[in-house]
Amino acid sequence: MPRNPQLVLSQARAPLTRITQVMDEQGEWREQALACERPLTLYLNKREIVTLMTLGEDPEALVLGYLRNQGLIERLEDLLAIQVDWDVEAAAVVTTHTPDDLEETLSKRTVTTGCGQGTVFGNQMERLRGLTLAPWHLKQSQVYQLLEALNQHNETYRNAGAVHGCAICTATGEVLSFCEDIGRHNAVDTLAGRLWLNGIESEDKVFYTTGRLTSEMVIKAAQMGISVLLSRSGATEMGLQLANMLGMLMLARAKGRHFLVYSDQDRLTLDARPDPMPRSSKRRD
Amino acid sequence: MPRNPQLVLSQARAPLTRITQVMDEQGEWREQALACERPLTLYLNKREIVTLMTLGEDPEALVLGYLRNQGLIERLEDLLAIQVDWDVEAAAVVTTHTPDDLEETLSKRTVTTGCGQGTVFGNQMERLRGLTLAPWHLKQSQVYQLLEALNQHNETYRNAGAVHGCAICTATGEVLSFCEDIGRHNAVDTLAGRLWLNGIESEDKVFYTTGRLTSEMVIKAAQMGISVLLSRSGATEMGLQLANMLGMLMLARAKGRHFLVYSDQDRLTLDARPDPMPRSSKRRD
Repeated sequence: MPRNPQLVLSQARAPLTRITQVMDEQGEWREQALACERPLTLYLNKREIVTLMTLGEDPEALVLGYLRNQGLIERLEDLLAIQVDWDVEAAAVVTTHTPDDLEETLSKRTVTTGCGQGTVFGNQMERLRGLTLAPWHLKQSQVYQLLEALNQHNETYRNAGAVHGCAICTATGEVLSFCEDIGRHNAVDTLAGRLWLNGIESEDKVFYTTGRLTSEMVIKAAQMGISVLLSRSGATEMGLQLANMLGMLMLARAKGRHFLVYSDQDRLTLDARPDPMPRSSKRRD
Repeated sequence: MPRNPQLVLSQARAPLTRITQVMDEQGEWREQALACERPLTLYLNKREIVTLMTLGEDPEALVLGYLRNQGLIERLEDLLAIQVDWDVEAAAVVTTHTPDDLEETLSKRTVTTGCGQGTVFGNQMERLRGLTLAPWHLKQSQVYQLLEALNQHNETYRNAGAVHGCAICTATGEVLSFCEDIGRHNAVDTLAGRLWLNGIESEDKVFYTTGRLTSEMVIKAAQMGISVLLSRSGATEMGLQLANMLGMLMLARAKGRHFLVYSDQDRLTLDARPDPMPRSSKRRD
């Protein structure tokens, strides 16, 4: 789905880190970097929707991804403008029409993930049921390539000290898009916004996160059309249930040569088994 | 402020972890624990408020802390009942009266922290301005005692694999209350609920978190009346600004003998400086 050719997009950028003076355990003073945290109030057709606390790396993509994942915008061509102004810490989004049920949607908000009971949950699960994800196969060697590429990326871009970083990668080991933010869901929403805006095919991509694979992370990856999940951390029960339901290959606790496959195990081709470690030094999980 | 003597409180408990079968990099299958993630829909006087995704460790305290931190309940004696039923994944809270501006409050929700612009921010900052925190002094030796006590606590209770753990501790090295949850703000809200319910004096306590000291964490600790913050991770710029404004002693990046003091440095007595490390092995921050 193409963007509206008249789409107006700002490119609001603000510093991501600041320096402060701190005292260490020796009583010595030194400089320390702090990640910025900026309140960004989102207006949809002049209606105040929410305030997102963000590092501020890519506010236009964040706001678009948020609106999309909340079901507040359906088609990319309906998007007319995203104007972010850090001076007033606001993002004004203009679309061709406002959803009819906006007030109702806004009155029922779920905190801490996009999944819950009641109307919000009901709607979310309905939208998920329509999703068909592509069950392609990944190779173990590709997983190792990816982890290496992500390591290198982290080394290069260790500026703000990622609380939560996530990325969209190709199966052949390329980090297409990386995002870090104060909150995990902001980071994912930003990736979703970028993918959508740039018309990137997502069916054959891998979603990576440093954080745990919760229901929210799994849902958002699925909403992006991605069927392979990779995490350094673990997963929650609900995250796994959803991955199974949606047909997603979930690899977690991935570090170095180690990983665990929680679902769709038959979609991972074990073509690069590492030498087994001697029992005495076996990694405690 | 005492609780209402007729307060009805459930003690709903559900398993915190589940076991699943996973495949590792050798193609071998084994059991792996997953943290549970349960949607808990909160009703205040029969009005649906929000759905919180939680590990489920202490739902009554979570729900109370949430309501308090959102300004939806002012006095403990107004609380008549909290009934959590995991079968229907719901928490019914009954208070003596519903806030007049409930609909307005609910229509403006901030995601990812409790701080933002607009009406929510305005109200939040107003409530914070009224806060006076006690500027007591902490000793470096006490910091080390605390970190040791927290380490031991982690060792003993490493069940669900804390995503975000936080604790209320005494200055003399006792972990009074520890909480872990899927989301950081849920963990803090739960602690707030427990403190309030049990009438625990908080002025002289230390708030500890494994996560970063964001604006939200700082605000919630302040709302609990706590003026000393301790974190294993870093801080955000806004978190620090708020700590300065509210008069809080903030120690972060605390591990082993190392820490950094970001604010109110004169309130930390350096009575246990470690031997300085030789330059070649100086810890890279």
